[in-house]
Amino acid sequence: MAAERTETVKVALGERGYDILIGHGLLARAGAEIAARLPGVRAAIVTDENVAPRHLPALIASLEAAGIAATPIVLPAGEKTKSFAFLQEAVDKILAARLERGDVVIAAGGGVIGDLAGFAAGIVRRGMNFVQVPTSLLAQVDSSVGGKTGINTAHGKNLVGVFQQPRLVLADTDVLDTLSEREFRAGYAEVAKYGLIDRPEFFAFLERNWREVFAGGPARVAAIAESCRAKAEVVARDEFETGDRALLNLGHTFGHALEAATGYDGSRLVHGEGVAIGMALAHRFSARMNLASPDDAARVEAHLVAVGLPWRVSDIPGELPDAERLLGYIAQDKKVSRGALTFILTRGIGRCFIARDVPASEVLSFLREHLGG
Amino acid sequence: MAAERTETVKVALGERGYDILIGHGLLARAGAEIAARLPGVRAAIVTDENVAPRHLPALIASLEAAGIAATPIVLPAGEKTKSFAFLQEAVDKILAARLERGDVVIAAGGGVIGDLAGFAAGIVRRGMNFVQVPTSLLAQVDSSVGGKTGINTAHGKNLVGVFQQPRLVLADTDVLDTLSEREFRAGYAEVAKYGLIDRPEFFAFLERNWREVFAGGPARVAAIAESCRAKAEVVARDEFETGDRALLNLGHTFGHALEAATGYDGSRLVHGEGVAIGMALAHRFSARMNLASPDDAARVEAHLVAVGLPWRVSDIPGELPDAERLLGYIAQDKKVSRGALTFILTRGIGRCFIARDVPASEVLSFLREHLGG
Repeated sequence: MAAERTETVKVALGERGYDILIGHGLLARAGAEIAARLPGVRAAIVTDENVAPRHLPALIASLEAAGIAATPIVLPAGEKTKSFAFLQEAVDKILAARLERGDVVIAAGGGVIGDLAGFAAGIVRRGMNFVQVPTSLLAQVDSSVGGKTGINTAHGKNLVGVFQQPRLVLADTDVLDTLSEREFRAGYAEVAKYGLIDRPEFFAFLERNWREVFAGGPARVAAIAESCRAKAEVVARDEFETGDRALLNLGHTFGHALEAATGYDGSRLVHGEGVAIGMALAHRFSARMNLASPDDAARVEAHLVAVGLPWRVSDIPGELPDAERLLGYIAQDKKVSRGALTFILTRGIGRCFIARDVPASEVLSFLREHLGG
Repeated sequence: MAAERTETVKVALGERGYDILIGHGLLARAGAEIAARLPGVRAAIVTDENVAPRHLPALIASLEAAGIAATPIVLPAGEKTKSFAFLQEAVDKILAARLERGDVVIAAGGGVIGDLAGFAAGIVRRGMNFVQVPTSLLAQVDSSVGGKTGINTAHGKNLVGVFQQPRLVLADTDVLDTLSEREFRAGYAEVAKYGLIDRPEFFAFLERNWREVFAGGPARVAAIAESCRAKAEVVARDEFETGDRALLNLGHTFGHALEAATGYDGSRLVHGEGVAIGMALAHRFSARMNLASPDDAARVEAHLVAVGLPWRVSDIPGELPDAERLLGYIAQDKKVSRGALTFILTRGIGRCFIARDVPASEVLSFLREHLGG
């Protein structure tokens, strides 16, 4: 039975708390699960041109079978959709469908769609119901948990958005079979991240079982559920990112800077790959600052190599800006507090911490060494 | 002493609670009041081309004297500024000033600027600090209290926005002397509204003392403070407008429809005037539905006439759409719940209530009668 294999992770946020269901066949059950929690709603489904042909008919059929009328809003695929222009388009189409505050916006797609649709749901009528149906591994383990939404601007990634918790997340692990190897690997970087932050046993599990996670089956469901649990615990402690939640940014400060440096060109670097390189750099930088053993950095690098993820700046194809320019991207990243550089560093595998007042000069000389490759 | 005349209204919203200061000379004290509550911040001041020449230099000087560096963002005046385009402009300029999450966005202006700047503060870095310096009577008694922000779209007014509570509101009653008579009167409609909702003694006070409220002095401070107190009490009971807060929409369902019908052309009808006509219509419609005495409707109309506010649809200059079209505007207004029309109706002066399931046919025939004038 498909239902037997469904795991439920509860995100404990009081009256904003919600369930994440993880398992097989959830797309087909979406209508019933939503109708049980939000009786009588109508829906807008925000999705993209890649996901729509694969999953939209099944999702609409599932909703209609549960009596939920749904208006599809299909946007272009890719990071560039996280813009003011497409936010406005999504908002206009939700309003044109005459949805009310009690109706639901469903995000069916990867992180881009989740971030954009969640932002739209958060601002139409000052907040509608929101449900996530994440279709990428990255979205299932990261962006669908925690309520952060947003768009990019010329000043940087994710600098504009709201906190908008979903009412339900349906992570159908079967839909991941339609992803390319590269997409799956990129999402896997975030899975490994949870082990590296504070779950050393989980990282060891992944070192042993990553092939089965990639292949599908119980190890995949277990790894996704453990990732959601890890993120949900941090989010429950710190919903609005005033403290501990910053740990989730492991690898993201370097990663975002590299994404910006490549002009968010997904053919060169996608988000998860940036995070992979960023995690390797964070561990290597921690070793350089005598916070952790170089052996731990080497272990992280070895695992990234094993699964086929990039781990060095030189793994990125094409030209990159110099170290000074990269530091500028880091300084404009949102994880800056009153001018001091804040990084997630580590004392070893699963022992990350928030390092404030990291000297820019140390980061600069570190970047100079690593831009050589 | 100016300080002696300052009234403080506390908005009780737990950790999102804040003070509204009402009185003379508050613009000159803005820097000190903000620095006392938000030490070490930098600021962006969002204002408009009308307000900037009158008040911006004094506000910047006050901030600088308190050690707060401020970047002014001056937008065109008028309702059309409440758009996606100007939201994006404000957001871009706040980011260009490199303000961080702990810095502050100050809205110095009327309701348009407050709604737009509050929306921007709510979405830049997923929520910055926000301070209101309302410069119109309408903004002092209405939009600066309660945390609603938003913009207009082709689908209607205020359909897109967030709830973003300010950290502080500084209502300098002296700045109201720079308003035109028409602007002051439009704001006064909202003052009278609080009496009509649930404060019959306050409405009687206004009937006796409205001339002194218009002239300035203690009656003005008292009326503004009572209005803020009235709104703050409703907001504290129902921050996210799931119940009682809808009472504040007295006059607004008809009013918004009339504003939409005039294409938001302020030369024909400004918001407060729409609310004035809307309140008169709500009382007259309540009488027609045998909920209240026609004498109460007549008393409301007489007060609006006395202060020089419009009270009939025929007081609006120019052509208006027919009753069916107006009903269409009402149906698209955000105070619609699952297709049923919701209005704020009354059982008498100060006895308003939320009427759900008002038959559209009754509204339509009522509008037909009143469009004749």
